[in-house]
Amino acid sequence: MPYRANVEEFRFILDHVVDFAQVSATERFADATPETVDAILSGAGRLSEEVLAPLNRNGDLQGAKLENGVVRASPGFADGYRQIAEGGWVGTSADPEFGGMGLPLTLNSCVNDMMGAACLALQLNPLLTQGQIDALEHHASDEIKALYLPKLISGEWTGTMNLTEPQAGSDVGALRSRAEPKGDGSYAVSGQKIFISWGDHDVAENVCHLVLARLPDGAPGTRGISLFIVPKYIPDAEGNPGVANSLKVVSLEHKMGLHGSPTAVMQFDGATGWMVGAPHKGMAAMFTMMNNARLGVGIQGISAAEGAYQHALAYAMERVQGKPVAGSHGAIIDHPDVRRMLVTMKAELFAARAIALANAVAIDMARATGDAEWETRAALLTPLTKSYGTDTGIAVAQAGIQIHGGMGFIEETGAAQYLRDVRVTAIYEGTNGIQAADLVGRKMMDQGEAAFRLIEEIEEGAEAARAGLPDLAGAVWQAAESLREGTDALLAQQMTDRLAGSVAYQRAFALVLGAHFHLKAALAEGGTGARTALARSFILRLLPQYGALLAEMREGAGDLYAHNIESLAS
Amino acid sequence: MPYRANVEEFRFILDHVVDFAQVSATERFADATPETVDAILSGAGRLSEEVLAPLNRNGDLQGAKLENGVVRASPGFADGYRQIAEGGWVGTSADPEFGGMGLPLTLNSCVNDMMGAACLALQLNPLLTQGQIDALEHHASDEIKALYLPKLISGEWTGTMNLTEPQAGSDVGALRSRAEPKGDGSYAVSGQKIFISWGDHDVAENVCHLVLARLPDGAPGTRGISLFIVPKYIPDAEGNPGVANSLKVVSLEHKMGLHGSPTAVMQFDGATGWMVGAPHKGMAAMFTMMNNARLGVGIQGISAAEGAYQHALAYAMERVQGKPVAGSHGAIIDHPDVRRMLVTMKAELFAARAIALANAVAIDMARATGDAEWETRAALLTPLTKSYGTDTGIAVAQAGIQIHGGMGFIEETGAAQYLRDVRVTAIYEGTNGIQAADLVGRKMMDQGEAAFRLIEEIEEGAEAARAGLPDLAGAVWQAAESLREGTDALLAQQMTDRLAGSVAYQRAFALVLGAHFHLKAALAEGGTGARTALARSFILRLLPQYGALLAEMREGAGDLYAHNIESLAS
Repeated sequence: MPYRANVEEFRFILDHVVDFAQVSATERFADATPETVDAILSGAGRLSEEVLAPLNRNGDLQGAKLENGVVRASPGFADGYRQIAEGGWVGTSADPEFGGMGLPLTLNSCVNDMMGAACLALQLNPLLTQGQIDALEHHASDEIKALYLPKLISGEWTGTMNLTEPQAGSDVGALRSRAEPKGDGSYAVSGQKIFISWGDHDVAENVCHLVLARLPDGAPGTRGISLFIVPKYIPDAEGNPGVANSLKVVSLEHKMGLHGSPTAVMQFDGATGWMVGAPHKGMAAMFTMMNNARLGVGIQGISAAEGAYQHALAYAMERVQGKPVAGSHGAIIDHPDVRRMLVTMKAELFAARAIALANAVAIDMARATGDAEWETRAALLTPLTKSYGTDTGIAVAQAGIQIHGGMGFIEETGAAQYLRDVRVTAIYEGTNGIQAADLVGRKMMDQGEAAFRLIEEIEEGAEAARAGLPDLAGAVWQAAESLREGTDALLAQQMTDRLAGSVAYQRAFALVLGAHFHLKAALAEGGTGARTALARSFILRLLPQYGALLAEMREGAGDLYAHNIESLAS
Repeated sequence: MPYRANVEEFRFILDHVVDFAQVSATERFADATPETVDAILSGAGRLSEEVLAPLNRNGDLQGAKLENGVVRASPGFADGYRQIAEGGWVGTSADPEFGGMGLPLTLNSCVNDMMGAACLALQLNPLLTQGQIDALEHHASDEIKALYLPKLISGEWTGTMNLTEPQAGSDVGALRSRAEPKGDGSYAVSGQKIFISWGDHDVAENVCHLVLARLPDGAPGTRGISLFIVPKYIPDAEGNPGVANSLKVVSLEHKMGLHGSPTAVMQFDGATGWMVGAPHKGMAAMFTMMNNARLGVGIQGISAAEGAYQHALAYAMERVQGKPVAGSHGAIIDHPDVRRMLVTMKAELFAARAIALANAVAIDMARATGDAEWETRAALLTPLTKSYGTDTGIAVAQAGIQIHGGMGFIEETGAAQYLRDVRVTAIYEGTNGIQAADLVGRKMMDQGEAAFRLIEEIEEGAEAARAGLPDLAGAVWQAAESLREGTDALLAQQMTDRLAGSVAYQRAFALVLGAHFHLKAALAEGGTGARTALARSFILRLLPQYGALLAEMREGAGDLYAHNIESLAS
């Protein structure tokens, strides 16, 4: 499974689709010059191709193992991780004060995209650390920052997120972990956490857990939760890993995929931790980390799609079956249905990536300018990036298997691994249903203002394209107009109805936005060429799905509750 | 993973949706009285619940193994298989002259549906034997029939299909296996076959291979292929398994799922075989088996969907997270998006099952009456059954994982197994793309006559429902009308365009047909109640997808070939 880092594709999207130039025009990101962008993209590309891609199959076949209480990573992962850390790729967008490169999150997203396409299981490790760095930069005390950030940014230590408990998954507020003040500024943290990705391992010298727990006087629900940093080894006076903390890995899960990423059940037995942020304000701090992580997980979906696409394309160009009715290559890539699948994969991949990078640009702009509009834009795009990115990952991996025919079901070809690995991305960091609830709930608390503003931009984009690409522009304009009307209808719905149609609305929004970016790409090449053909494929073949999706949204919950439990069970 | 056989559901579809009464009204199937139907359904249901379902997880965890050239089935499979055979479930619809029950294929399909929902990997074994029985009944000499049919029907021996070779998958005509006449009426068959499900095992005393091979004077391509029966052990004078034939299992595949079903690479080294059917007419005989098998594989998709649905429903009724905004159960089943997923799963499952059983009824009617119209109907429905049944299996299994949240990715819950097992059903017995090519190619060689006749019936059904269910009837009528126009457009397309839109057209057709059956079900309960709610969900939420699908079909291949290889690879 060779992987080729598609540096040109990132450069094109940055330059012509998501207006990255505005990010490098800010004072904060003035260092992100074209030369720096080139160096970052080609450096991360080389690492991904040469070091990480060769580890991917190992991670699947020989997953992480728990041996005598210690987690052993997959063969080669320790060295791969070391090269990620030494290259500075954990801290691409981290604060330079603590050793980070201080580059835009947009570039970091490109780096994560390449690393994930090469080896998703290993990429998850620095991704989690990046989320922790982000949370500490925003919420931790200066002391904690000074102690932990340099170690995390250099990759000497890694970070995890400890939210979920058996009874508290999507409902984080139901958690039972407790933290008792020890009187010396530290806390004794106790409880069991599940689904802790990279919860322990032997690829770095320390593992820092960000743990959500309740203080003795913490109210029930999410308002009574605080956040703590709980290291595996407590740093000594010099800041080096000292005595072992009172925490352990109870077990590792047997998962459908991502075998190279150890998923731990963690037990904290009065483990020493330090509070991050204010008492009872843990969810706010965690949300910083989660929003970052949601963008990151959306990118994971996209990167798996890239890997699966490249893998299927290579097979389709080699495999000969029958005489294709068109085309000139002679292999199955010339069969119309195989070609349709490949073009669909590539078109969805482009749309998902453009959405994610536009999301990253919005975050960077918000950070660089403090402009609340960028903040709002980023918040609106986050559920779209996460859900559409990961749905695309699954759909492209499914198509990749299908293109392989019978060989797709055989593990040796590697096609199935993409699906097995990417499947969880639609679940973790908030299921895609939770993303949709976030989109139609929290993100519409402004009465749709942010959504309407984005739809306005999409329509302006279509107007600008009307002269050169009338059919595509007309289709996108019409879709945006329907989305606007659909958004009006959504806002008029009761919450139960909104939630029932939320996933359909979320997908419709992503399709329209994806079409918008395709249109920009087509315009950028002058309305003729490969990108225009791809835009045409997306806009004329896939975009029309918005009609059925908005129809489903308008249905609301109505008939769903007409099914009683007995009838569903019969 | 308990499985509950849904006997009432089958009875309802038979009685009220696919008009099974016309089958039992024929002379040939006069034995299929309501009492017999009840006995068959409840007997197969009991076997599936009590014997087969408990084997399902074993088959996944401890797949079939090749040891010293012999395949060992998963723990418990031999006993499970014995009970299938002793119950007569291999030969439910086989010829009574050779020990079969002679019942309609429709009933056999219900039996297979239940057995597959309980344990797909084991069910595949009798499914293949049934295909072989069908091929022998139609094409074999009296001698071969007398020797093999009683053993296959009783389940003492099992059957396989040997078509695929490394270079000949979808392109069967590229096969290289050879058969040389030995002068005594038998042939020496040589070649390598791959993807041979249940190619060897220890659950029955003999394995009979139907092998496609070329005679010395066989023309290249599919017209020069003959069919041979090649037993693992050559029957002796008494018809008992005698000396071992010159064939062996080279290896077993490591697959994404269906671990309990051994998938063998078979090597035939001058193995003794006997011709089935006429020289060079092997494909015709194989098509009998394949059409039967395509219905059977469509049913496999449906049965996996049933298993995954029941499994997810049970979880959704138990798992509590947060406070649902509606409903009264308190568990996640009351969350609108979870309920939407469950209702969607159930609605698609019903549609797929109704299509498959209508297909089976058409086959039974063709056999019982010899009426060419039924033959044509069955041929038209086969690709719809196979593709929509298996696509539904995958979609429902995906949703089942999603409903489980993080637990869906953990193998112990069993949600992932449904997806891993069912994934191959969209590939084997002709990929769903091959089904679509069959639908828009071979099945439209009548200029769409059979399709238009079915669309006419759908419109008549909608007219009949207009008084009682005006909104649903109107939606179905409109969809059928669009399908008719779409079919006209399809017929006017060049073959490359047709093939490019074939999968979209195939799905649109299945959705419209599924809506038709939902409407019939709603009418049958008087337009109010659980089935009407389900019909409403399908028709108002899912059916609208036909618009985008037909739009994609109309696009044809046009832009697909505007992507050259370089642009696809960049």
